[in-house]
Amino acid sequence: MKIGFQGHRGAYSELALREYFGKDAKAFGYDMSESVLENLLSGELDIGFFPIENSIVGNVAVNLDLLNHDETVIIGESYLNINHCLLVKPGVKLSEIKFAHSHPIALAQCRSFLRENKIEPVSALDTAGSAIKLSKLDAPDHAVIASSLCSEYYSLDICRVNIQTEQNNITRFVAFVKKENETRNLKREKTSLSFSTNHTPGALLNCIQNFANHNINLTKIESRPIPTDPFHYIFYVDFIGSSQDQNIIDCLEKMKGHVQSVNILGSYPMAKKPTRNDS
Amino acid sequence: MKIGFQGHRGAYSELALREYFGKDAKAFGYDMSESVLENLLSGELDIGFFPIENSIVGNVAVNLDLLNHDETVIIGESYLNINHCLLVKPGVKLSEIKFAHSHPIALAQCRSFLRENKIEPVSALDTAGSAIKLSKLDAPDHAVIASSLCSEYYSLDICRVNIQTEQNNITRFVAFVKKENETRNLKREKTSLSFSTNHTPGALLNCIQNFANHNINLTKIESRPIPTDPFHYIFYVDFIGSSQDQNIIDCLEKMKGHVQSVNILGSYPMAKKPTRNDS
Repeated sequence: MKIGFQGHRGAYSELALREYFGKDAKAFGYDMSESVLENLLSGELDIGFFPIENSIVGNVAVNLDLLNHDETVIIGESYLNINHCLLVKPGVKLSEIKFAHSHPIALAQCRSFLRENKIEPVSALDTAGSAIKLSKLDAPDHAVIASSLCSEYYSLDICRVNIQTEQNNITRFVAFVKKENETRNLKREKTSLSFSTNHTPGALLNCIQNFANHNINLTKIESRPIPTDPFHYIFYVDFIGSSQDQNIIDCLEKMKGHVQSVNILGSYPMAKKPTRNDS
Repeated sequence: MKIGFQGHRGAYSELALREYFGKDAKAFGYDMSESVLENLLSGELDIGFFPIENSIVGNVAVNLDLLNHDETVIIGESYLNINHCLLVKPGVKLSEIKFAHSHPIALAQCRSFLRENKIEPVSALDTAGSAIKLSKLDAPDHAVIASSLCSEYYSLDICRVNIQTEQNNITRFVAFVKKENETRNLKREKTSLSFSTNHTPGALLNCIQNFANHNINLTKIESRPIPTDPFHYIFYVDFIGSSQDQNIIDCLEKMKGHVQSVNILGSYPMAKKPTRNDS
């Protein structure tokens, strides 16, 4: 099974993927999320793996937009506690470090630590890419903020772990396949769905009312602008239950009167949420 | 009036800011949005200016989180049609270009153009930063995707304009000040508000029902995870009307029974939405 993610080797997506599929998973990193999707659709990859929520790796909400069509289906979800590590050249001590390179959001999440230790943040395109660069340089006063996996791949020392200010720093990922490759005997506990309404208060109200009428527990509601229709919105909701349950089929049938479009992104086993950062 | 934005000179945020405050506005770019906020609170800046919706410049939803407290207030909004330009060294022609550097999202938005012209995309930290780099290099086969403003600042030629696939590529910005500096005679046509509920369907339903009961027209609803409370959500809504209107005061009073917190981010003049990319 070939699994694609966006990023360099050692990116948090790869770490999450290895937690989910096992340490020996065949993982392939791509520059762009779009490339992961294209290689999945062309048959080059078997599974795609995207962060979709609360990630440090940039603008992940767009990943959901990439899955909002008829050709792919979500088959699973997982959560990763993001543990930012300060990685340094072998043997270097914290007191020697003057600069730390990383993605701007990772830098922002570790600001207190950097200030306390008088380390200057330097913005870079991504976390693992910074580690690759540092591994090639003779730069004892430079460090990177990246995953522990990067220390293995790029022969860097882990100088400090969990240096982020906010310890509840959790990213949610989904695994997806081409629709024709969906496993039939999947444990369908949770469903991801998209729908779009005009931005009238009534339409959204009716949709949410409809979920409540059917006793469907929304675990998430997120809105995103529709790329081709600026400032109208598409809603992404998750709820407990399978799209094959009769109650949910009835609910979606009633919803059709109030929405422009509705799209089931997948029904899949529910992951356990981590409650604190102990990874 | 000193106005702060996140990014280098020539970033789309600066372009939007100059459209809003005028060409001669005193604009100052900062590495991080957090720095803009800090410099505003310390009195170094008079006004902050952030993209908050549908932007090409990365993870802008976090900018709303930065404004979700008691110390700042939104005083205005504006829309910018993002017009991605291919900028090249002076005199270079399109057929000579082999590489285009830019922010990954800008590259993704211009993928069709790049493919047609057999130009390889190269990811960079930001659009204007790429233009700065190119201006310092002797690289006739390299281009950047950035704003037209960057061509002025960094002596690059505009080789092509509007190279994005999706022409409706609009970003929404807000201007904000320290609460004590809010203009008293502001035309308060539109209000931005945040509230948080537990993620029970009932609570959100009651909030939205409450807006509908008061005939309040929601122009936007967006949810964001709460940083300190993973996978619970904070909702950002915009609606027509002022937080000083009696009807809206009544509505918010009633809402208090269903929310953990509610915060008025500002009431401000409404901007006209651009309908097509003709900038």
